[in-house]
Amino acid sequence: MECKSALAEAKGDLAEAEVVLRKRGIASAGKKATRTTKQGVVGSYIHAGAQLGVLVEVNCESDFVARTDDFQELVRDLAMHIAAADPQFVRREDVAEAVIEKEKDIQKARVIAEGKPEKVAEKIVEGRMSKFYEEVCLMEQPFVKENTVTIDQLIKTKIAKLGENITVSRFARFKVGDTDAA
Amino acid sequence: MECKSALAEAKGDLAEAEVVLRKRGIASAGKKATRTTKQGVVGSYIHAGAQLGVLVEVNCESDFVARTDDFQELVRDLAMHIAAADPQFVRREDVAEAVIEKEKDIQKARVIAEGKPEKVAEKIVEGRMSKFYEEVCLMEQPFVKENTVTIDQLIKTKIAKLGENITVSRFARFKVGDTDAA
Repeated sequence: MECKSALAEAKGDLAEAEVVLRKRGIASAGKKATRTTKQGVVGSYIHAGAQLGVLVEVNCESDFVARTDDFQELVRDLAMHIAAADPQFVRREDVAEAVIEKEKDIQKARVIAEGKPEKVAEKIVEGRMSKFYEEVCLMEQPFVKENTVTIDQLIKTKIAKLGENITVSRFARFKVGDTDAA
Repeated sequence: MECKSALAEAKGDLAEAEVVLRKRGIASAGKKATRTTKQGVVGSYIHAGAQLGVLVEVNCESDFVARTDDFQELVRDLAMHIAAADPQFVRREDVAEAVIEKEKDIQKARVIAEGKPEKVAEKIVEGRMSKFYEEVCLMEQPFVKENTVTIDQLIKTKIAKLGENITVSRFARFKVGDTDAA
């Protein structure tokens, strides 16, 4: 009994330490975010049946990191994620102003139709816009293989582990017959 | 000696027959060119070292043809060709009006600088524009694996063989660090 509780306590400590380390890693990842990434890898994912395919460019700082298994795994995960989650943009800054305005108008109209008081209306629209970015921006989507982390967090964890800034510069996602998509 | 010449003649006949058949095939391919292509395959090509990758959607009329080895081979060939030849557009009609105008202006200025008489200047510009399309449009490029045929002819041969219209709807080509490219 005593042994069990000691074990439980030790496990708790370990989990806590991991959280601290992860936070520290992600914080240090933040510092690396401005460093330029000119090396990297182009990866692809073709879904079974070849009706859906993805091409993605993931960048890092050195050719050395680009060749590590960890980096290659990230590229594979991202390509697979993009196939499954169908993002429209890499990050919030990439969403065209016209798309944002259109979405805001839709959400404003919805809030008005729902008869919400004007005081809270703006807050609600803001919240729904956050939700919208989460749906259409790769970096804000929950990772399909582990939906408690976003793609941004997944990448930050790799930055912490590999010690280099990592960015996604672009992707293409083709589905047969779906020629309007990017 | 007699045997040899007979053989040579037979070979000549065979080559001639092939040309006729090919012409006939390509002619019948032309007739199929208006048929809609909603099925197909998304293929990719990642060049050794993963610094360059291509994604391409090739369409045909039926799922049955999409699954044939012939069609799959075409998709692989096209992806590889795009990686090597770096086209900017699928076909002439896809080139933006602004790009055409800019190129025409460049060629006109060149012709004037070369002091060509005005009578022939227009013809020369026309010829150089043809050359330009051949360089930037996938369908007009000579196939990298067999540069006596264009991609358009390569596809027409497959149309003749498989009996279905085949089209390339889109492609993406990513080279690491080359973020301006399409």
